[in-house]
Amino acid sequence: MVSLDEHYPNPCAFCKIAAAYPPDSSPIPSNPDPEKVDPQCFLLLSTPHVLAFLDILPIAPGHILLATRKHYQKLSDLHNTVPNTTPHGNSSSDAAAAREAREEARETSRALGEYLPLLSRALCRVTGIEDWNVVQNNGERAAQVVPHIHFHLIPRYQEGRREVEGRNGKVDVGMLKSWRVFGRGAREDLDEEEAAGMAKELREVMRSELEGEVGGKAKL
Amino acid sequence: MVSLDEHYPNPCAFCKIAAAYPPDSSPIPSNPDPEKVDPQCFLLLSTPHVLAFLDILPIAPGHILLATRKHYQKLSDLHNTVPNTTPHGNSSSDAAAAREAREEARETSRALGEYLPLLSRALCRVTGIEDWNVVQNNGERAAQVVPHIHFHLIPRYQEGRREVEGRNGKVDVGMLKSWRVFGRGAREDLDEEEAAGMAKELREVMRSELEGEVGGKAKL
Repeated sequence: MVSLDEHYPNPCAFCKIAAAYPPDSSPIPSNPDPEKVDPQCFLLLSTPHVLAFLDILPIAPGHILLATRKHYQKLSDLHNTVPNTTPHGNSSSDAAAAREAREEARETSRALGEYLPLLSRALCRVTGIEDWNVVQNNGERAAQVVPHIHFHLIPRYQEGRREVEGRNGKVDVGMLKSWRVFGRGAREDLDEEEAAGMAKELREVMRSELEGEVGGKAKL
Repeated sequence: MVSLDEHYPNPCAFCKIAAAYPPDSSPIPSNPDPEKVDPQCFLLLSTPHVLAFLDILPIAPGHILLATRKHYQKLSDLHNTVPNTTPHGNSSSDAAAAREAREEARETSRALGEYLPLLSRALCRVTGIEDWNVVQNNGERAAQVVPHIHFHLIPRYQEGRREVEGRNGKVDVGMLKSWRVFGRGAREDLDEEEAAGMAKELREVMRSELEGEVGGKAKL
């Protein structure tokens, strides 16, 4: 994990991104400045509960991260169940605060589920891929690097399949190519010019879907 | 992919599970019969939009699947954006049907996000693990076996880490052990007695969380 520290310093890199890009009136930012943070951030989505941006160490071109806006380390930290009863021993203001935190966590968990399909469709449209993995790691043993909930969307290009097929004649280890490099390995720094172009295309595709086929206003 | 066909035959195995276990008044089934389907299903969760059950070829003990109730092949098939306008060329009944399908997809996507944290907490409590991966594969090149949206929750036990550490002195390839066996490889058939016990514990932990600390009724 230490080898990635230069890219993901303290304080939490994703909290810095969340602070630099507050939610706007639309979930799709119109022309976000990548240089609001260092390293640059190619923002795709910014809502009150989640953000999406390109991974700065992509496994494959178009590698997207969908993160919570608020800092939660692991999925289990999203305490999103909402009991109707007030726990014993709490004052009413404590209970109200606990309830508010749960509602916030609940809306966040629902937003994570809600935006994965939209991001997936945009990823397919822009990169031309048909296959991709969604991966969310919890804890160091699960290869989590930034301790802030995020889902990876990782395109699987045709090339990767051919390579695996060529090696052993089977495709059932088709995940190997990417997973092998999930640590440091072959991940490469993002090319900033390419990233800016791809982020713009991804935003345009998502915006056009959200606005509907006939150009009317829409909500997710 | 063919090597798994005996476990995942047509028609879609997850659609068969969805049909065998309709939604009940509570999201946590009280005492579901594993033999309603073949192979047996150790059901954990059953709502109008999603189901969770133990993987029949676990990568590690406690390997859980969270699937949509309705048949969608890939995440991108969850057309969950809801334009406010009526598309051109559709009759009003077509438009109403399209809108209903989108609302259904939207609620499904939100339910997927909403139940991952609850399942994660139960998994940690019952198995004692602290680290786990959430993986959702889209398409053959991404190692999707059953063509019906499902998220894997895969515990990462301490043992796995030691093994990797011992091999090269680093932990940054901590994902390797599991990914290597994501195809056929070292995945083993579920031990039915162990699975029944674990499923029962998982349901109890989730039910107790949903009912609240003081035993009151709760909703997710």
